[in-house]
Amino acid sequence: MPRDYWGELKDPVHGYVYITEEEKEIIDSFPVQRLHRLRQLAGAEYVYPGANHTRFEHSVGVMYLAGRVTENFNISQRINKDEAGMIRIAALLHDVGHGPFSHVFEYLLDRELDKTHEDMTRWILTNSELKDALHKIGYNPEEIGKLAVGTLHKPQKAFMDQIISSAVDVDKLDFVVRDTHHTGAEYGYIDIFRLIHALDILDENLAVDLGALSALESFIIARIESFKSIYFHRVGRAAQIMLATAMEKANEELGLTRFTTPDDYLAMDDYTVWTRLKSCKKSSGIIKNLERRIMLKCAYERTFYEKDTMISSIFSKEAHRKQLQADIAKKADVDVESVIIDVPTVPSVPYHHSVLMEPMEIPVFYKTLEGNRIPQRLSEISRIFEVLRGFINVLRVYTDEKNREKVSKAASKILGDVPSSAKISY
Amino acid sequence: MPRDYWGELKDPVHGYVYITEEEKEIIDSFPVQRLHRLRQLAGAEYVYPGANHTRFEHSVGVMYLAGRVTENFNISQRINKDEAGMIRIAALLHDVGHGPFSHVFEYLLDRELDKTHEDMTRWILTNSELKDALHKIGYNPEEIGKLAVGTLHKPQKAFMDQIISSAVDVDKLDFVVRDTHHTGAEYGYIDIFRLIHALDILDENLAVDLGALSALESFIIARIESFKSIYFHRVGRAAQIMLATAMEKANEELGLTRFTTPDDYLAMDDYTVWTRLKSCKKSSGIIKNLERRIMLKCAYERTFYEKDTMISSIFSKEAHRKQLQADIAKKADVDVESVIIDVPTVPSVPYHHSVLMEPMEIPVFYKTLEGNRIPQRLSEISRIFEVLRGFINVLRVYTDEKNREKVSKAASKILGDVPSSAKISY
Amino acid sequence: MPRDYWGELKDPVHGYVYITEEEKEIIDSFPVQRLHRLRQLAGAEYVYPGANHTRFEHSVGVMYLAGRVTENFNISQRINKDEAGMIRIAALLHDVGHGPFSHVFEYLLDRELDKTHEDMTRWILTNSELKDALHKIGYNPEEIGKLAVGTLHKPQKAFMDQIISSAVDVDKLDFVVRDTHHTGAEYGYIDIFRLIHALDILDENLAVDLGALSALESFIIARIESFKSIYFHRVGRAAQIMLATAMEKANEELGLTRFTTPDDYLAMDDYTVWTRLKSCKKSSGIIKNLERRIMLKCAYERTFYEKDTMISSIFSKEAHRKQLQADIAKKADVDVESVIIDVPTVPSVPYHHSVLMEPMEIPVFYKTLEGNRIPQRLSEISRIFEVLRGFINVLRVYTDEKNREKVSKAASKILGDVPSSAKISY
Amino acid sequence: MPRDYWGELKDPVHGYVYITEEEKEIIDSFPVQRLHRLRQLAGAEYVYPGANHTRFEHSVGVMYLAGRVTENFNISQRINKDEAGMIRIAALLHDVGHGPFSHVFEYLLDRELDKTHEDMTRWILTNSELKDALHKIGYNPEEIGKLAVGTLHKPQKAFMDQIISSAVDVDKLDFVVRDTHHTGAEYGYIDIFRLIHALDILDENLAVDLGALSALESFIIARIESFKSIYFHRVGRAAQIMLATAMEKANEELGLTRFTTPDDYLAMDDYTVWTRLKSCKKSSGIIKNLERRIMLKCAYERTFYEKDTMISSIFSKEAHRKQLQADIAKKADVDVESVIIDVPTVPSVPYHHSVLMEPMEIPVFYKTLEGNRIPQRLSEISRIFEVLRGFINVLRVYTDEKNREKVSKAASKILGDVPSSAKISY
Repeated sequence: MPRDYWGELKDPVHGYVYITEEEKEIIDSFPVQRLHRLRQLAGAEYVYPGANHTRFEHSVGVMYLAGRVTENFNISQRINKDEAGMIRIAALLHDVGHGPFSHVFEYLLDRELDKTHEDMTRWILTNSELKDALHKIGYNPEEIGKLAVGTLHKPQKAFMDQIISSAVDVDKLDFVVRDTHHTGAEYGYIDIFRLIHALDILDENLAVDLGALSALESFIIARIESFKSIYFHRVGRAAQIMLATAMEKANEELGLTRFTTPDDYLAMDDYTVWTRLKSCKKSSGIIKNLERRIMLKCAYERTFYEKDTMISSIFSKEAHRKQLQADIAKKADVDVESVIIDVPTVPSVPYHHSVLMEPMEIPVFYKTLEGNRIPQRLSEISRIFEVLRGFINVLRVYTDEKNREKVSKAASKILGDVPSSAKISY
Repeated sequence: MPRDYWGELKDPVHGYVYITEEEKEIIDSFPVQRLHRLRQLAGAEYVYPGANHTRFEHSVGVMYLAGRVTENFNISQRINKDEAGMIRIAALLHDVGHGPFSHVFEYLLDRELDKTHEDMTRWILTNSELKDALHKIGYNPEEIGKLAVGTLHKPQKAFMDQIISSAVDVDKLDFVVRDTHHTGAEYGYIDIFRLIHALDILDENLAVDLGALSALESFIIARIESFKSIYFHRVGRAAQIMLATAMEKANEELGLTRFTTPDDYLAMDDYTVWTRLKSCKKSSGIIKNLERRIMLKCAYERTFYEKDTMISSIFSKEAHRKQLQADIAKKADVDVESVIIDVPTVPSVPYHHSVLMEPMEIPVFYKTLEGNRIPQRLSEISRIFEVLRGFINVLRVYTDEKNREKVSKAASKILGDVPSSAKISY
Repeated sequence: MPRDYWGELKDPVHGYVYITEEEKEIIDSFPVQRLHRLRQLAGAEYVYPGANHTRFEHSVGVMYLAGRVTENFNISQRINKDEAGMIRIAALLHDVGHGPFSHVFEYLLDRELDKTHEDMTRWILTNSELKDALHKIGYNPEEIGKLAVGTLHKPQKAFMDQIISSAVDVDKLDFVVRDTHHTGAEYGYIDIFRLIHALDILDENLAVDLGALSALESFIIARIESFKSIYFHRVGRAAQIMLATAMEKANEELGLTRFTTPDDYLAMDDYTVWTRLKSCKKSSGIIKNLERRIMLKCAYERTFYEKDTMISSIFSKEAHRKQLQADIAKKADVDVESVIIDVPTVPSVPYHHSVLMEPMEIPVFYKTLEGNRIPQRLSEISRIFEVLRGFINVLRVYTDEKNREKVSKAASKILGDVPSSAKISY
Repeated sequence: MPRDYWGELKDPVHGYVYITEEEKEIIDSFPVQRLHRLRQLAGAEYVYPGANHTRFEHSVGVMYLAGRVTENFNISQRINKDEAGMIRIAALLHDVGHGPFSHVFEYLLDRELDKTHEDMTRWILTNSELKDALHKIGYNPEEIGKLAVGTLHKPQKAFMDQIISSAVDVDKLDFVVRDTHHTGAEYGYIDIFRLIHALDILDENLAVDLGALSALESFIIARIESFKSIYFHRVGRAAQIMLATAMEKANEELGLTRFTTPDDYLAMDDYTVWTRLKSCKKSSGIIKNLERRIMLKCAYERTFYEKDTMISSIFSKEAHRKQLQADIAKKADVDVESVIIDVPTVPSVPYHHSVLMEPMEIPVFYKTLEGNRIPQRLSEISRIFEVLRGFINVLRVYTDEKNREKVSKAASKILGDVPSSAKISY
């Protein structure tokens, strides 16, 4: 099966991206072209006017970086041409399962259908027109579907999954620099090609050569600062919460989670769902506010660095959050709907199942002069990494502008006075 | 009236943009926030995946540059604080009159209502909620409306209009670099602050100090190369033509041009109109094609450098274009709807009423050692400029993929064989 | 005294730098123009081919940033126009006291004369032609001299010194981004204008608003990663050690530290001293090696994160280092001159008296909703900062290529086997 | 002969440059390492503080781009691995023949020895230690020497020379963007990879696909604007003239052109010659002025666009220039040494034998749908190119500050009043 060069796309971040005839077929399919109408950072435009990039642009970038990884000699000698092609295609398709406003819709998916966007990606790859398109160019849709979400589990080749989905995968490498390029938030200029060049395989797992430790530490910091400044920014989160609430309220009427075919699901994108939320009575009020930048306000914020069971349960269980919301609303004497507790583990937080919330260990090694690769524990090697493990939990209470003071006081009473060091604004 | 600093926006192109309390009020209004849902370069995403920036982002940038111009000592000494504030506000608002897909909708506005987006801008500023908002912060909406489209004609202060609208205005200075930043097409990295610093006033007109001739020439070239590579790119134009056709076909049913109030008009944006075009039978076929990147194809292309009356009339009169389309369709034995003649003077071409199509003369001067400013004719000073005046007319015939060959032959017979030098692909 | 705008310089990092007539006079003086021949990062060109920027370029950048700080409203309301001018001039002149190869010469200054480059800066400002030039434009050379090294101690205005010299001063803000721009090492792209904008005065001290905590943390990380990747890079340090050794050996013959007037001192720059070292028998061998990139090799390296008295004394006292060198040489059976112990506290390490080696506390505060500024301890607020305090000590043993193995073994015996986690290559 | 990857260099312009073991050997040789002490743009630092990059950095960049060209499929299928390696090595070595202050020394080479820096490059490659080094890694020094200056004339492979030396060669592609990066003059951000990708071979010659016409036009404009703003900038040229005059005056005493071996020649670099000029009585006055930025002033300037025999002879013949200088000096009643006529064809002008002065024709072609490549004349295709051919001649008369007015008048009388349009400052 030939893998001919067909032409190129010009990417503002990576420059020219050369693609094959087969890749062009997949790129021009409806499920991929639809990504033109899914913004990468829904809600962030209320903070960063330039944050308008789409999942299409990102997906092309991820494919490009996947290609660069497969050209790394350490990797290329372990895969054949077909596997290299698979990795690029899977990288291109890793986000096709996203719903409108990306992670915001995931909240609904999770609540109503107990699904993630990764589940949707696999479903679409094996049931939509992409199934035929993949067959036609010689790939197994089932396999691509698994690889696209990092669960192919090919014997002896765990690294294939890890290129697409792991602590240092091409998805994260792309969005860290791309989000910086378009938002202007200057936290993500990292040396991604140093990292890509430093990748190697230990047994069957992707690992990073400690020669690139500075680049690796910078990447980790970039992720954390981007999280604080972009993904979990107070105002951006307010917008996402408002969108999530609007979808929740309108769901019964609009049937957003009643799709039965991939085509039904894919008919939803930022454009169509925004339009429908705008005309649905139950959600139009929220949309009206968003259209005038009348945002929910943060009435309480507390940052936790340490693991704490109380916190963890608030963070992870919806029932517990609901209860707390009711308590605060009661004490503040406001409508229960006006009180929203937000934590990074809610499914609608972009990248919530990320390194940030959980003990993470990136496999690293150093090379002896004789060329042996000695595995290391990153937390033992890097003080920066060590301190950042498990970092960072932020609990916020949002409400309307008019209830801000009352809710702020009530939350303080129930959740504890916030020590000054936790009040800071980031 | 106080003009207090309120806070800042982070722009990926210009960095921090500081705004006043009053400006924030205007920015948060519905007509300005709506610009979040008007893409700057509708259609360009089919060529440049990163071309997703919006008119909101651009408008903030234009306001910023307007502010920088008013800080130029040559300008600041000729205006008071209030006028400086007006210029920033007018710059911010110069695009609020744009319809869905920006210039594409302008084609309909022009045909059906004989209006331009500038007409709409003035209408909105004097009839929507912006009227009250402007009053509230101490401005005359009528005046801001005129200034926003460059027709305030304040006695002795023509330069105020020219800062917003002229051959070297802040609108163009912003979009040249911004379009480059987001598309990755590397034609627009020019030294805009050199140009802004070189601005001065001759009599009452804005003029450029020839000390910045290199920057000025680079700016002119950047505009031309951007025109060829972004705005009038074959594939990007195909997308725009398809959108324009879809709106034309659906107009009767959807009433896109039957709005009577600013609110009706402003309810239309890229999101809502795309959704409506998708569900309207008359336009859904085109949208379906766009969703799968099945684009119109260019069957014939010819570039003209010289002025020519035949060409001019084809270029400017719709009736003439229609006739030619019919002739070509007949000779090609295809449906007349399948043949579309495209020229840069069609209103839906971004920036059609630009320097590119018409004799342009940017006022320039040189300074004697004694500090006198001697006006010059740019065409006499700059060979680069001289050759670029009146440049560039491109005539194209588009059709469906399947009719491409037939239409290509028919067009050649009717419009003349294209000398090889005109066939080139740019 | 008028402070007229005279013209501009184009800086690759900050863009246009506008200067006054008076500043131009100072810039064109011999001591400042000499900085064209002092490279900012002597030795780094052996690692980063692009690391060729000079202290002249840096000094202009520092002046620019100083100007930006004085325009920050929090600062500008506390100083008059004259003080603002002083701060810019002092920033411009803060490095005039540097000797050839900058920090490398400082090693000699320290050993032979017990002086730092700051001492030389004050001496030059009050004794060279700059004295008259400063007088002429209305400044007190003595005051500028003190301010340039951060010791003016103006009553109630400690922040004036701190703008030039503190943990977050304009010197560091400039070199972090400039070193990144020219080397290509991507660790220093930080948001310096966010930091400058977040500066405020607590009592009389410069402090950072915690709203900019992300920018501040990124700055701290950027400094550390730059330290590891640029300033203390193994090969770059090898070059600096070779230059320092060459100067030490040639000093008696060339009289590098026998200058008696500022003019004598200023006659030395990278160009003249390199040429003299090349022709002096005692140093020509080292220069010959540098000219062929035959570098000293690192035979042993150990990183310390914890404070440790043994380490500290090795690090700070030359006698102790000498003794250890002798011990290692003896055990390795090599010439004592072939063994060099290198630690970041040696005066020839760029930025050795930096935040990196000592407990550092940057004053920070948060603002209450009512606008009160509440001082905080950064180490309590920022986990990233907390872990980085006191970080990072690196002990290295250098020797010639041919003795590498022998010295490596001897060092291990004497200094202890290096646990694997400390062997890593950064 | 193996071509193993050895490691990488980090370039601020192109990112990581991967090199082989063999290339490293050549890079670490004395003649290449010496390029660390030859600045790329001697004199430009008086205008652009950041213009401190060296020929070493540039040479690595040129090698990198040469490698990229050889990876272009159109090229790679016409050369074997060995030829590809040769092209990289020749690109790396193309500038080793430069003397101190690069083109400035070439003026002396030309006058005294009738040599160019290309002659020196060939001489060094076939007579210095590089001869042995090239042999050792399997290359023929004679061949590399010819290829490095574009005169290998390999049968059927003229394109090999043209990659290194032609109107669109890797030398120019590198310096256009590199000079922009380090100076901050924003004229050279062009799409070099688009050009490299558009290269193809017609018969045996390098040609550019017209699909990249915009990139090609931008490149041509970038070269012209860079010429005006950087290379032939009034103040930068003043510095170069002063250096050239200093070397001319000191030559007899210092014997700058009396070298007999490559080692003698290579012992001269910016550092050593500056130091010697400073201590030589005949040149020390000029160096003293440079050290204080007391520059020659431009007393007369005239731009010519048309070919003109009078002008041409002034431009090309030194005797004629000398005569004119004497005439002007006499009429101005100043010392003849105080009058210097400067034209871009003087050998000391960087890039004087460039496209700018002579009819240039870059081979271009367009591809038919069938894939045939039809050669075109660029001047017929591109209006921008057409107007720029033969462009631009600038005649200047320099003198000391104190004689400026007298010389200005005298020059006007002898060379004609300058029409205002030619007085402009660029």
